[in-house]
Amino acid sequence: MIEKKPIIQDLEALSPIGALPGGGVTRLAFSSVEAELHRLVARWLAQLGGKIRKDALGNLIARWPGQDDSLPAVATGSHLDSVPQGGKFDGVVGVVAALAAMRAIRKMGSLTRHPLEVIVFVGEESSRFGVATLGSKVMSGSANIEQYLQLRDAAGITLRDAAKESGANLAEIESAIRQPGELKAFLEVHIEQGRVLEEEAAKIGVVTAIAAPTRRQITIEGRADHSGATPMALRRDALTAAAELILAVEEYGRREAVHKSVATVGMLSLKPGAMNVIPGQVSLGVDVRGIDFASIQRVVAGIDDKLQKICQQRHVSAKTQQLSADKPVQLDSTVIASIEAACQKLSLPYRLMPSGAGHDAMNMAKITPTGLIFIPCKDGISHNPREEATVEDIVLGAEVLLHTILDLAK
Amino acid sequence: MIEKKPIIQDLEALSPIGALPGGGVTRLAFSSVEAELHRLVARWLAQLGGKIRKDALGNLIARWPGQDDSLPAVATGSHLDSVPQGGKFDGVVGVVAALAAMRAIRKMGSLTRHPLEVIVFVGEESSRFGVATLGSKVMSGSANIEQYLQLRDAAGITLRDAAKESGANLAEIESAIRQPGELKAFLEVHIEQGRVLEEEAAKIGVVTAIAAPTRRQITIEGRADHSGATPMALRRDALTAAAELILAVEEYGRREAVHKSVATVGMLSLKPGAMNVIPGQVSLGVDVRGIDFASIQRVVAGIDDKLQKICQQRHVSAKTQQLSADKPVQLDSTVIASIEAACQKLSLPYRLMPSGAGHDAMNMAKITPTGLIFIPCKDGISHNPREEATVEDIVLGAEVLLHTILDLAK
Repeated sequence: MIEKKPIIQDLEALSPIGALPGGGVTRLAFSSVEAELHRLVARWLAQLGGKIRKDALGNLIARWPGQDDSLPAVATGSHLDSVPQGGKFDGVVGVVAALAAMRAIRKMGSLTRHPLEVIVFVGEESSRFGVATLGSKVMSGSANIEQYLQLRDAAGITLRDAAKESGANLAEIESAIRQPGELKAFLEVHIEQGRVLEEEAAKIGVVTAIAAPTRRQITIEGRADHSGATPMALRRDALTAAAELILAVEEYGRREAVHKSVATVGMLSLKPGAMNVIPGQVSLGVDVRGIDFASIQRVVAGIDDKLQKICQQRHVSAKTQQLSADKPVQLDSTVIASIEAACQKLSLPYRLMPSGAGHDAMNMAKITPTGLIFIPCKDGISHNPREEATVEDIVLGAEVLLHTILDLAK
Repeated sequence: MIEKKPIIQDLEALSPIGALPGGGVTRLAFSSVEAELHRLVARWLAQLGGKIRKDALGNLIARWPGQDDSLPAVATGSHLDSVPQGGKFDGVVGVVAALAAMRAIRKMGSLTRHPLEVIVFVGEESSRFGVATLGSKVMSGSANIEQYLQLRDAAGITLRDAAKESGANLAEIESAIRQPGELKAFLEVHIEQGRVLEEEAAKIGVVTAIAAPTRRQITIEGRADHSGATPMALRRDALTAAAELILAVEEYGRREAVHKSVATVGMLSLKPGAMNVIPGQVSLGVDVRGIDFASIQRVVAGIDDKLQKICQQRHVSAKTQQLSADKPVQLDSTVIASIEAACQKLSLPYRLMPSGAGHDAMNMAKITPTGLIFIPCKDGISHNPREEATVEDIVLGAEVLLHTILDLAK
């Protein structure tokens, strides 16, 4: 049984760390703020009887023995870092839910058969170094570590220096990779960061697959002419060409909505960008995501096709740079069934759904059966000071987590 | 008869002033660079026998007496300032053509019946203080002088201070306004800044009307959601809404092309502008121009109507701010006929056409019959280091100017 009061206390204790005067928090990956959050949570985990260690990158791991300590551990956790001017729930909810579940298990007074772990990953947000889920990428052995360590933040600081400063032991970084048989399962509770649960009045999202983005940078070259002196028929306007493409991105996303794919133009810049000049160059950032890679590829192919037609019809040219084309991650059916059973037992309205955003769970899924449990967040707002989840929903998420841990660890 | 060689010499002498290492020039309004150009041209005008004066704002005026010096003067000129990283022909061509015409008239050895003037306006480009054609606005009495003097450049310098620094006598600024009866006509030679002449293999554009812009700032508010976690059907994407509007601006511009109207979105900025966030806010700068105000109004009404529909269909909201709604300026039919007659006499292929860009001529048209003579510029490129007009075309423009001056001053 999950207690509400300690969850409120945990949230309140974490709240001032990295807090901004206007609301929200800035808790960047491998910053002293993140380190402070990790120290505080490590203390709480130790108070709950966990055996604390930091891996070579700085991921925090607390372990409780099982009745048979030679068995693989059931692990749960999330992250504490945030985007700049982010909210207090993204990542935090998963750590707080893990603490709440361990608190409940400890009160039961008996050991689970499998050992248990709480993992707090470092550096989940990509805002600082441009790569997301660094901690779980390293732990799952899916990071190109040497390349990543050379990444620099906006101030020119390398990930290598920031991680060292945070206490990482980079000489032994390979030791951070978890070995086969160490883990039986990994579970993460997270806010949805969307409005699907809210719209459908569901309390829990049982994630079946984590979407992966295919990202493209598209640059359209037209001709920058005087807006007053160039008749409509003589124009090669890069922005009207881009507008057609933006609507095509939306159209192809809509066509594949049945397969849960989405397509977005989130970035656009134009040159020269003056009231009296026809735009000569427009750059677009296109993000196509889904849980069905074939569907993603159909969207991308449709966009490519449309772009070619636009170039021919409008006498503009275009260059496309592929930034990423990751494969979606299917989550483990046994773990999904266990989470569903927990929801049913608790009589909670739940929904099987994809995760549109990436999470540490997608990396952990490469090395162990993994589950991801969503709780609603207000208006779907995330990465924003107005990000909010109710304590009641966090309690429910922790309750589902607790039941699933007990089921998988028995 | 216009001589080619002195034109080449004039262009070469002006060329290094304000020149940039990579090509092009930066000759900002009321800068020391503009002042240096004015000093050099004043010397040349004096050498041609002109009586030189500066008006209270800093416009340079050279005057030659007529046989009847009590008659109003026939004036010609243009400007010497440029946009940042601009070209060496915008404005300069009109000054060089005026010098060439005066050189030819002086060689004739006899006075014209009407006195003649060459006027070099200060501050034609809006880049520095945000207001274009300052010199001619003041001279034509159409400037809100007190308001303009408070304008600041990007460095925070007021127009008042910059003008004083350039030697303006602001205490007597009203004296810069030309009085009725002072001028019989004003003529300006200018590069087309478009590709109409080039496309039609015409050598001279006889401008019938100067287009005026109606400018709008439109801000569309949608909702910034996570691009991965928000299904297509739950989106309120401000950028896809903007894309529809951009295509509507183009469509309404095309519909009114027969009336020589054009419509352009030249500026666009979006928030938050991240690969994984659906744009929540988009701001657009819309510029509608034409020589037929009713046609401009039809385009603007069409855009407004479409914007309303987009807001309804896409559940976004929009705010529209009108930045300007100037009336197009019809040029004087007698002056147009005189320019046409000159082209015919010289057997030059010419074209009656509107000017899409604003010019000092549009202000002068408020106080005296005015004509504007276009010569081709390479690929229509202007406000750019690659701006170019051939000496041969400048000679032809000066030739047409010379004939028109002689006709109007007789």
